[in-house]
Amino acid sequence: MAGTPVPFTADDYAARMDRAARAAAEAGLAGVLVAPGPDLVWLTGYAPPAATERLTLLVLAAGRDPVLVVPTLEAPDAEKAAGASALTLRDWTDGKDPYAATAPLLDGRGRFGVGDSTWALHLLGLQKALPDTSYVPLTEALPMLRAVKDAAELERLAAAGAAADATYEEILKVPFAGRREADVAADLADLLRRFGHEQVDFTVVGSGPNGANPHHEAGDRVIGRGDTVVLDFGGLKHGYGSDTSRTVHVGEPSAEEQRVHDVVRAAQQAAFEAVRPGAACQDVDRAARAYITDAGYGDRFIHRTGHGIGVTTHEPPYMIEGEEQPLVPGMCFSVEPGIYLPGRFGVRIEDIVTVTGDGGRRLNDTPREMAVVQ
Amino acid sequence: MAGTPVPFTADDYAARMDRAARAAAEAGLAGVLVAPGPDLVWLTGYAPPAATERLTLLVLAAGRDPVLVVPTLEAPDAEKAAGASALTLRDWTDGKDPYAATAPLLDGRGRFGVGDSTWALHLLGLQKALPDTSYVPLTEALPMLRAVKDAAELERLAAAGAAADATYEEILKVPFAGRREADVAADLADLLRRFGHEQVDFTVVGSGPNGANPHHEAGDRVIGRGDTVVLDFGGLKHGYGSDTSRTVHVGEPSAEEQRVHDVVRAAQQAAFEAVRPGAACQDVDRAARAYITDAGYGDRFIHRTGHGIGVTTHEPPYMIEGEEQPLVPGMCFSVEPGIYLPGRFGVRIEDIVTVTGDGGRRLNDTPREMAVVQ
Repeated sequence: MAGTPVPFTADDYAARMDRAARAAAEAGLAGVLVAPGPDLVWLTGYAPPAATERLTLLVLAAGRDPVLVVPTLEAPDAEKAAGASALTLRDWTDGKDPYAATAPLLDGRGRFGVGDSTWALHLLGLQKALPDTSYVPLTEALPMLRAVKDAAELERLAAAGAAADATYEEILKVPFAGRREADVAADLADLLRRFGHEQVDFTVVGSGPNGANPHHEAGDRVIGRGDTVVLDFGGLKHGYGSDTSRTVHVGEPSAEEQRVHDVVRAAQQAAFEAVRPGAACQDVDRAARAYITDAGYGDRFIHRTGHGIGVTTHEPPYMIEGEEQPLVPGMCFSVEPGIYLPGRFGVRIEDIVTVTGDGGRRLNDTPREMAVVQ
Repeated sequence: MAGTPVPFTADDYAARMDRAARAAAEAGLAGVLVAPGPDLVWLTGYAPPAATERLTLLVLAAGRDPVLVVPTLEAPDAEKAAGASALTLRDWTDGKDPYAATAPLLDGRGRFGVGDSTWALHLLGLQKALPDTSYVPLTEALPMLRAVKDAAELERLAAAGAAADATYEEILKVPFAGRREADVAADLADLLRRFGHEQVDFTVVGSGPNGANPHHEAGDRVIGRGDTVVLDFGGLKHGYGSDTSRTVHVGEPSAEEQRVHDVVRAAQQAAFEAVRPGAACQDVDRAARAYITDAGYGDRFIHRTGHGIGVTTHEPPYMIEGEEQPLVPGMCFSVEPGIYLPGRFGVRIEDIVTVTGDGGRRLNDTPREMAVVQ
């Protein structure tokens, strides 16, 4: 586990804001509007304690200086953000109309990319203040804005992946049989934190039939001998995400359990091998899906093959049928096919993969064989 | 501290959904659209692990059965919600267009109330799928939908308030001088949890000059003798919020510190006394502001006097100039005037107050004198 990475500087944030403004102009947009959330963290280093009904909005447009509209109350916090010196703060006071305060910053007939998770309250406020503006979700307008990671970001993602791998190695040593899923999940969370995560986003422990629900988290079910158990866990370390899945078995698996696991493992390998610059995102999905379909489980693979990862554990690009975006070196995403047999068990295997100059490189590399746990 | 309250039933949720649909119709709306968040919890008991780019949307319209649009992956979770039997689930699968799946549920020319925190991504998706629909934020269309609490909700808010009060009584016993704000904040969080909070939302410890920033949380500043310290903390207990502030002093206060505290205390009392059915929200703000202005600190009271509280710690009604909404018995909100002297210190005193048949009743009742701590 390496030490703390070198912090991003105001220059790093200035470069990201400039890149976003230029990309917006190239896409025919008048600018980009970003409310609190991962995009704002990535662009400015600023993370207010919570998104609220009080408008905070970063306004980026090519050829103009970035402006951050903030509630007066929160201006002192915003001034402390790592990217604060690369932007101008414009504050508004309780009781004033924040949309009227923002309007002069915008081209009143422009089309803007607006952060996906911006509250509807704020979008409706802008639409009302400037009825001739129009809007498009940022991930639709500039889906790849954060998708290609630079070296400093890859270093962080690799460190997060290594921490998740260390967590997996340790969890294999804990007892499973006779304990609740939630107990193993708590172990996973503790381990992620011990290995440097400041935030745990999910700790899935899907035992037996619960493993057949891909979004089951962890419950009161007591894990028993003979159970197949899906583990899927991750969070943020130094601000960048981890996300890995392995499926383990309490005692020796049955022939069928082993066969299903073998299919998923081979499908995951096939999808990994489909990763290369210029391939489409959907090609990665197709590679996994074709393998699973040929094995007779096509209708039991009920989700997309992967999602991007960066300052969030869930972002574009998506490895899904219909996504024609070509892969570019530096993109990072999960490759996580699964098979789910309702009422019985599930299997999922997941690594984070980054696109290299000529293929893919896994940021998770624990054994993908089905481990036997106690 | 009382025990666990009786859980809300599917009938409770059905009644809330019916109330919302009727209120929407009375307001001339075609319906109400609610994404994951506090409104969805209040209406259905359903809280997906996180709001994501995958659409989950409750559709309510008078005379129609409630429908919850959910990603197929999350349908098993939604089925377990306490209010699930009072609604119909309609699921959509990865790769399909969730807005096309939702459109047939909506009047294509209707005007809808949409939850404030609904992602812009989803609102834009609906606006595109149904270009002749229009939208208004739910807190603008039906600001008082959750504002009037019933007896079961008041019981929970009172229990949360009592837990916050117990936290305050205990925090007075810990050492302040020589410890970092963050250490005292951690004590506050531990105490809130010990007294039954399942979620801690904020633990402000604003010592000396940090107290002059109303949104300062808690940092590395070491608290010293002679410091005025603003404490403001709260979270959720049994799903309902607490939020209280007291300002303490490390050792004996100066005459000026005492005077400022006396002004805030009297202003808080004046605002409390302004609470009665039929008074406007802004009257509560005006009562506090008039007192502080008369004392010469009007320009140092830089925020509104209060906000509602319920399944969140921050919601309508707002006690602010311009809010003419009349107070109604059962409403619950904070009364929290403050004075902030930049670079020096701040004072804030806050109680949750509920409107009764003939006035107000505080749900926090620890002493409001400036406590001396060590």
